[in-house]
Amino acid sequence: MRMYDIIMKKREGKELSKEEIEFFVNGYTKGEVPDYQASALLMAIFLKKMSKRETVDLTKAMLNSGEIIDLSSIEGIKVDKHSTGGVGDKTSLVLGPMVAACGLPVAKMSGRGLGHTGGTLDKLESIKGFKVALDKQEFIDNVNRHKLSICSQTADVAPADKKLYALRDVTATVDNISLIAGSIMSKKLAAGSNAIVLDVKVGSGAFMKDLDDAFELAKEMVDIGNSMDRNTVAVISNMDEPLGYAVGNALEVKESIDALLNKGPEDLMELCLALGSRLLVLGEVVSSAEEGRKKLIEVVENGKAYEKLLEFVESQNGDVDYIKTPSKLPTANHIVEIKSKDSGYIKSINAEDVGKAALSLGAGRETKESKLDLSAGIVLAKKIDAKVEKGDILAYIHGNDKSKIEEATQILYDAYTIGAKNTNAKKLVFGVVDSNDIKRF
Amino acid sequence: MRMYDIIMKKREGKELSKEEIEFFVNGYTKGEVPDYQASALLMAIFLKKMSKRETVDLTKAMLNSGEIIDLSSIEGIKVDKHSTGGVGDKTSLVLGPMVAACGLPVAKMSGRGLGHTGGTLDKLESIKGFKVALDKQEFIDNVNRHKLSICSQTADVAPADKKLYALRDVTATVDNISLIAGSIMSKKLAAGSNAIVLDVKVGSGAFMKDLDDAFELAKEMVDIGNSMDRNTVAVISNMDEPLGYAVGNALEVKESIDALLNKGPEDLMELCLALGSRLLVLGEVVSSAEEGRKKLIEVVENGKAYEKLLEFVESQNGDVDYIKTPSKLPTANHIVEIKSKDSGYIKSINAEDVGKAALSLGAGRETKESKLDLSAGIVLAKKIDAKVEKGDILAYIHGNDKSKIEEATQILYDAYTIGAKNTNAKKLVFGVVDSNDIKRF
Repeated sequence: MRMYDIIMKKREGKELSKEEIEFFVNGYTKGEVPDYQASALLMAIFLKKMSKRETVDLTKAMLNSGEIIDLSSIEGIKVDKHSTGGVGDKTSLVLGPMVAACGLPVAKMSGRGLGHTGGTLDKLESIKGFKVALDKQEFIDNVNRHKLSICSQTADVAPADKKLYALRDVTATVDNISLIAGSIMSKKLAAGSNAIVLDVKVGSGAFMKDLDDAFELAKEMVDIGNSMDRNTVAVISNMDEPLGYAVGNALEVKESIDALLNKGPEDLMELCLALGSRLLVLGEVVSSAEEGRKKLIEVVENGKAYEKLLEFVESQNGDVDYIKTPSKLPTANHIVEIKSKDSGYIKSINAEDVGKAALSLGAGRETKESKLDLSAGIVLAKKIDAKVEKGDILAYIHGNDKSKIEEATQILYDAYTIGAKNTNAKKLVFGVVDSNDIKRF
Repeated sequence: MRMYDIIMKKREGKELSKEEIEFFVNGYTKGEVPDYQASALLMAIFLKKMSKRETVDLTKAMLNSGEIIDLSSIEGIKVDKHSTGGVGDKTSLVLGPMVAACGLPVAKMSGRGLGHTGGTLDKLESIKGFKVALDKQEFIDNVNRHKLSICSQTADVAPADKKLYALRDVTATVDNISLIAGSIMSKKLAAGSNAIVLDVKVGSGAFMKDLDDAFELAKEMVDIGNSMDRNTVAVISNMDEPLGYAVGNALEVKESIDALLNKGPEDLMELCLALGSRLLVLGEVVSSAEEGRKKLIEVVENGKAYEKLLEFVESQNGDVDYIKTPSKLPTANHIVEIKSKDSGYIKSINAEDVGKAALSLGAGRETKESKLDLSAGIVLAKKIDAKVEKGDILAYIHGNDKSKIEEATQILYDAYTIGAKNTNAKKLVFGVVDSNDIKRF
């Protein structure tokens, strides 16, 4: 088998065999296939697409390139949740304790933030002492004991994906449905849970800007998961404005604590219920999503979800005083008000721009090596459809460096569009995809 | 400007600006753009195509990456001829002396053979003492003095093309019209002649297997040449069987000598007249192709073309005794007859396979480092449409190594198809493309 022939075959729009896909993935991971041949093939895949069968084989080859975590020593059905990435998306911090409080084991391996989207591990590290690097046994023990653990991905999971992603990132071959689906699912499948709920974001702050593309990606990932015997469901959710009000690590932890104290923003709570109720169904804790919602609302209202958060933080060496007294979390030196220059209604808030403003403040990473400012970020005061008068506060910038605050101010002003009242009500969840059905709401 | 954005733009099927193409070509030549980004862009170009304007800009950028030969010290209109590569294509050896004998200066820089196609320089080196590496002044002096010089390309001509071609060769991005046209024309334009006749080969032994593709490539190259004020004409010719009978370096020199003694194969002579008559028109020696044909036939019949060959060989230090007594040229130790296993008519001779058989005998280069056997090759006994009886000789293999001869025998047998009589007469020239017109014959 020669890489040249594989490139030519895909270039002609033909379907690659399982063996050809494995030859490429394994050869590239081992360094036997050079970067320039891999990038030519990636561009051919990007432009000529992959069939469902090829995408499944690509996912399997990347999955098999590294370690597959064995969670069989955790009792019961293990569930995992994955978001395709958004701005202000602190769902895991809220959803994890809610679902665990319902008795379902949540074994979650998370990533760091990169670019304009945040990462769960960074947020958790705002809590003094919180340990994200657990060894496998600690992780399993924690899930068995507390029904919830969130740790960093071990280095050995899907190394093929790691290497290919880095190449796609510099050759303009990232946003292809098969390549994204393969990348996400190879890591999720390697993480070993039995059931997966995917939160596929669509809108100005997401990878997918187009609703049909988001449904296609969701369907592709659900099919991959189910073809490998993982009960997989995808929820397609709105990322046309940040989720909740807070964007930035410690700021999002504060908002998550509020949410578990039943004082959270409506959209965040609604998304947690949408995703959590499906996790409970997959975990066979409830028999319908409606029943799941009720149970989740109950554990928030009776304080059990908040108690689970305290238990979880303590179990990973975090200082629970930071949760009980959130003012102890890292705080920025400057809080600057962003005031509206016009009157009218908020037509749109470009979520990617809000993410970029937070990034410029140090809340995110420009490159893998960037050091984070955990206290920095943005808190929105008003969201889409809100009425504003000239001079009303649109948002607060939390920062420590005046020149960075100035840069963020400019980006943030450009993110807002003020105009006439929207006639269409905004939607949070656009639909749900499972193995049987694509439901659009 | 970022290479990432250029790749993305072409990936989306958009037209690249002159500046973007220059950024890529110059950056890649200097080593500032890595191979993996260049190959991703090449695949995007391959699949999304380039406009005529982009192809011209690509050609110019590659042309300007190196030295442009100044031939202005040669008097009169300088003409050049280029073939896209075929099997048994010794046209330059015959055409050069014919055209020069008509008084038109031929200043030709040639290449070495690679793969199944031969190279003019290798053939000339069958002649003892023949020197292909001339410095610029020698080259110019020779053309002024003898109206003909053929030398190797200097290392400084179109280095961008050299580097890009090597990358295309291993990433399945060779056979794209714009990339081929740019590669050929950047070198031809750098070689400094005023007028160019292109021999675009089509058929089993050529790059282009399809007639429409060949016309498209021809049109593209003619337009590039004319856009840069070089009077350029393309002849589309048949490469569905080898040209003439001989394939292999010394064997082709012998056949060329025969041709200049007016004893050459009909197809070879006909192609030399088709190409040569157009060179004479472009060089303003004659006012019509018909007049050109007559003049060329005249210089062959009156021996002036043969005398020009002797003069040319002597001027480049070659031993003219090798021309006067061709049996002095390198000769193989073994000549093996290939006999027909069937009776009927020759339906086809796969020219690429004949080239590969010659290659396996050592007549060509597998890689740039291969050492040639100048005596080795194949002489066909019968060509397409000939009647054969079982046991008739189809071809002779000239070789020095028995195991290589066996390998070549097998390849050669597979190259021939014997069957019923063809009903369509075979054509040598399919058409001519110039700046005004595309003529199909």
